Amino acid sequence: MYEFENIADKPLAEKVSDAIIELIITNKIKSGEKLPNEFQLAESLKVGRSTIREAVKILVSRNIVEIRRGSGTFVCQEPGVVDDPLGFTFVKDKKQLAMDLISVRMLIEPQMSALAARNADESDLREISDLCLKIEQLIKNNKDHTETDIAFHASIARASRNIVLQSIIPIIDRSGIDFITTLTRRILKDETIKTHRKIVDAILNHDEQAASEAMVEHLSTNLHYMQLEIKDNHNI
Amino acid sequence: MYEFENIADKPLAEKVSDAIIELIITNKIKSGEKLPNEFQLAESLKVGRSTIREAVKILVSRNIVEIRRGSGTFVCQEPGVVDDPLGFTFVKDKKQLAMDLISVRMLIEPQMSALAARNADESDLREISDLCLKIEQLIKNNKDHTETDIAFHASIARASRNIVLQSIIPIIDRSGIDFITTLTRRILKDETIKTHRKIVDAILNHDEQAASEAMVEHLSTNLHYMQLEIKDNHNI
Repeated sequence: MYEFENIADKPLAEKVSDAIIELIITNKIKSGEKLPNEFQLAESLKVGRSTIREAVKILVSRNIVEIRRGSGTFVCQEPGVVDDPLGFTFVKDKKQLAMDLISVRMLIEPQMSALAARNADESDLREISDLCLKIEQLIKNNKDHTETDIAFHASIARASRNIVLQSIIPIIDRSGIDFITTLTRRILKDETIKTHRKIVDAILNHDEQAASEAMVEHLSTNLHYMQLEIKDNHNI
Repeated sequence: MYEFENIADKPLAEKVSDAIIELIITNKIKSGEKLPNEFQLAESLKVGRSTIREAVKILVSRNIVEIRRGSGTFVCQEPGVVDDPLGFTFVKDKKQLAMDLISVRMLIEPQMSALAARNADESDLREISDLCLKIEQLIKNNKDHTETDIAFHASIARASRNIVLQSIIPIIDRSGIDFITTLTRRILKDETIKTHRKIVDAILNHDEQAASEAMVEHLSTNLHYMQLEIKDNHNI
C-alpha cells in the first residue's frame, strides 16, 4: 500500500475548511448569506489568517463559498454542488455516456413528473408553466433554449419535493447537453414544444399517470433521434 | 447583480488546473498513473512552479489527483468524484433525505439489477457472488457490513454496463448509510441475507425479471423498517 500525503499545509487547511462548513451549518448561514470575515474566522478557529485563506480556497474550489469583490465571502447558491461532480469529464466513450445518461433519465424522470403532479403547489405550477412558455418562445425565435430546458426539468424536480431528485436531475440533464447536437435539436423543436406542453398540462391537472406518460414520450423521442444520429455517425 | 471575483491568483491557477485536466485526458494518463513532475508541468504550460502548485491543490481538492509521499502526483482512482458531490451535507432535514434517497434507489436499482442480469460477464458474476458471501459472513460474525454492502450494490451497477449508474449508485447508496441505524440493521440481518441471495441468484441465471423483483423486495424491506423507525422516532 502507498502512503498518502497532502501538500505542505493541506491537512490543517482541510481541517479548518471542515470547521467552516460546521460553522455554516450550526449557525444556519443560508445560501447567499455572508460569512464572518477572515479576521473573525481566524480568531474563532484559533488559526492564522493565511490558513483561513487557504481553507477558503478549498471551499471556493468545492463550490461551497464564493468571494464577491469588496463585499466578502458568501455561501454559494447550491453549496457543495461542484461542476461535473460525477467525473464525466473523464469518461472516454462520450457516445455511450450520452446513451447511458438518457437511459437513467428514463428511469427517473417519468416518476419524478408523476410526483410533481401530486405535490406541486401554486408557485411550482406557475414556475413550470412560465419556463415551458419561455422555451416555446425561444424555439420560435430560433434562439438557444438549452439552459431554459435544464431549468424546466429542474423546476419539475423541485415540484416533486424529493430532495435527491432536486440535486441529481440538473447534474444528469446538464451532463447530457453536449451530445444533443444541433441536428437533433432542430428536428426536435416541434416535438419538444408538443411533449413539454403535455407534461405541463398533466402536472397542472395533478394527473400523475398522464404526467409520467408524457415524460416517457418526451424522453423516448429524444432517445430515438439520438440513437439515429449516433448510428449515422452524424456530428458526434 | 453582484460582481464575482476569486481570490488573488485563483483565475490563473484555475486555468492551469483545467490545462492539467486536458493533459490527463489527451495523454490518456489513467487512474493511478503518475503526472509529469512540477518542473515539467511548469515548462510545458509556461507558468511558474508556484502556479503549478496552486493548480495541483485545486485538483487535489476536486479529487482528481493525489500526492504520494516521495513519489509524485498521481491521477485518483475515481478522478473528479468528490466526497458528497451532491451537497447533502447541507440538507437540513436528514429524515426526509433518508426517505428520498431510498425512493430514488427504488426508481433506479431494480432496473439496474435487470441490466446486470442481462449484461454481467463471468468476472462480474464472480465479484457479485463473492461480495454477497462476504456480507453473509460479516453478518453471521456480528461485524459491520456497511462498506461491503455499498461495494455489493456498486458491483451490480458495474455489471449493468451503464456508466452513469456506476457513478451515481455508490454516491447515493453511501449518502444513505448514516440513516440506517443500528436497530434497523439488526432487524434487517436475516432479511438482507435472504434478499441479497435472491438478487445474486437471479443475476447468475440472467433472469432480468427476477433480478428486478428481488431488488424491489430488498429495497422495500429497507424502506419499510426505515419508515417504522422514523415514525417511532427511534434513534434518528
